[in-house]
Amino acid sequence: MTTSSFERAVRRVVPVDESARQAADERQLQLTKPPGALGRLESLGAQLSAIAGEAPPPPPTPAALVVFAADHGVHAQGVTPWPQDVTAQMVANIAAGGAAVSVLARQHGVTVRVVDVGVATDLDGIDGVTHRRVRPGTDDLATGPAMSLDDARRALDVGAEVATEAIAAGHRSLLTGEMGIANTTSAAALISVLCGTDATVVTGRGTGIDDATLARKVAVVRAAAQRAGGGTPLEVLADVGGLEIAALAGAIVGAAAHQVPVLVDGVIACAAALVATSLAPESGGYLIAGHRSTEPGATAALEALDLEPVLDLAMRLGEGTGAVSALPIVTSAALLLAEMATFDSAGVTRKDAGTARPPR
Amino acid sequence: MTTSSFERAVRRVVPVDESARQAADERQLQLTKPPGALGRLESLGAQLSAIAGEAPPPPPTPAALVVFAADHGVHAQGVTPWPQDVTAQMVANIAAGGAAVSVLARQHGVTVRVVDVGVATDLDGIDGVTHRRVRPGTDDLATGPAMSLDDARRALDVGAEVATEAIAAGHRSLLTGEMGIANTTSAAALISVLCGTDATVVTGRGTGIDDATLARKVAVVRAAAQRAGGGTPLEVLADVGGLEIAALAGAIVGAAAHQVPVLVDGVIACAAALVATSLAPESGGYLIAGHRSTEPGATAALEALDLEPVLDLAMRLGEGTGAVSALPIVTSAALLLAEMATFDSAGVTRKDAGTARPPR
Repeated sequence: MTTSSFERAVRRVVPVDESARQAADERQLQLTKPPGALGRLESLGAQLSAIAGEAPPPPPTPAALVVFAADHGVHAQGVTPWPQDVTAQMVANIAAGGAAVSVLARQHGVTVRVVDVGVATDLDGIDGVTHRRVRPGTDDLATGPAMSLDDARRALDVGAEVATEAIAAGHRSLLTGEMGIANTTSAAALISVLCGTDATVVTGRGTGIDDATLARKVAVVRAAAQRAGGGTPLEVLADVGGLEIAALAGAIVGAAAHQVPVLVDGVIACAAALVATSLAPESGGYLIAGHRSTEPGATAALEALDLEPVLDLAMRLGEGTGAVSALPIVTSAALLLAEMATFDSAGVTRKDAGTARPPR
Repeated sequence: MTTSSFERAVRRVVPVDESARQAADERQLQLTKPPGALGRLESLGAQLSAIAGEAPPPPPTPAALVVFAADHGVHAQGVTPWPQDVTAQMVANIAAGGAAVSVLARQHGVTVRVVDVGVATDLDGIDGVTHRRVRPGTDDLATGPAMSLDDARRALDVGAEVATEAIAAGHRSLLTGEMGIANTTSAAALISVLCGTDATVVTGRGTGIDDATLARKVAVVRAAAQRAGGGTPLEVLADVGGLEIAALAGAIVGAAAHQVPVLVDGVIACAAALVATSLAPESGGYLIAGHRSTEPGATAALEALDLEPVLDLAMRLGEGTGAVSALPIVTSAALLLAEMATFDSAGVTRKDAGTARPPR
């Protein structure tokens, strides 16, 4: 029996390098600033060092955004007001450069790769899409498993392979993106099971739904989570997950396997990160949460993942918009460690030990 | 009697354009995303439109960071463990490109202008500094007024003139920076008076001080604030302010006078923004808070200014580091409004009116 791309990636993930993290922290004390004054930029710099195994760390650029797209059978339950065709339409919009994440990626010089891992609509006429469709959308997770274990494995493989290709092409960070109408329902179910949190807590309004739709969505999430509870992580993924979520989990592990940082986007990416860290626990050290989505499931997942998001801009769009927006901050963290002058090199006097001089 | 540069700027400040803000909000609804899904990026885009008087607004680039540097007589009270010479040393470090803000400005293509408006130490041998010294540091605000009303006016003029020059040179946003050992004491006193908040609430540990130093600093701030309370904004500025804070206030009004957005940095810039909006109330519409400094006075001032910071990264360095770090986010807000496809242009179906389709 052959080992899959994903399994190979899982075996390759090593813990991040704590000695490099410590070296970064020590270097921060030499730089021309009060200790700790750069706050989160210092801890991000230390994490990048731990990931790369060296301090100062290389900047996380050039960066690659992978946008996995797929459809969801649970759309039939009326959990969203958006037609299912919008998945394919937005894939075309992203590929053409007109989506929000396209604008942000252009601004920051991020390469965008759009991968069809399970869109239900024909995409043949659309340029710029990588065709890796496992199947044309999942089954309805409200009435049975969303996909087979084998489908889930194949989607994990697609993710691991796309990440490996991006890194082989010279990219030094992986940013997670996705598109899939109804996928916040699947993400909420995954988060509910993997965090052990009730459906009412983790289910949100996604792209914007009314109270009646939200009540329907919560009921769907609760029933699916109850059915899936107690399964192995792979079984849970197949039962209530999505093909793009599985691919994202595969990509996260694929990047971690190459010691490359992963900038996690919103609630869908958080669900994928829970799957990834369930299947490859050491991949957690490679995760940087780009932002805190307003979707409640994101906060539950971030807490379970022990991730402090870089940005908190009340965004809830997905596509990778929060991950791409955080890239300049993460890049700053690396550049500051590499380029700031030290007290010695700049001839700046250090503060008196511990205390100020009392008044004359 | 001639009108000063600052006074001319004050008279030129007009309210931001609410019709352009509304046009931006309406445009957001046409763009290929759920309404409101870009969160703070949408409100920032609307504010940029209101500032420029057009939607979509021009991006805030190229951006200019102005770093005003000055010393503080209150240093003699032992409110900081850093020697006063560090102001001049850090001016040299910033000018040479080795400071934290130098690294960030380089990353983001921001022009840096370092202006000596009142450093106590000789700066003649340092390249790249604009010499506009009003006087070599303030007097000790613990024992009397920090400066005369005329000194404060001259520093306001320096700020207004530097901002005007930056805009004349083609810059499309002004980012506030500063350097001045002991200036968090002056900022805390200004914030205490102008927000009517007690010294214990607004006085923080600045660059990092122990409990004994903090107690001394609070006592100094409280006494100074009590003395200055009840004065006109200009009198308060002269009594407990700093030359770089006055220059920053002048620069804020100068930028507002030219309808250019101002990215406000940390606690020192917040104190300057309180002075600016006291002297030219309509300048408040041009302010964007780059970040929330961990200095407690910053939060008090942001609340009084009704500003929601873009970033919250536990930073407390000053120099303009928080303002420069926020620039990419603010730029994104403008680019998204200008470059995103609309539902019509991209052929994306809108969601069904208000609600989802119930299940079949």
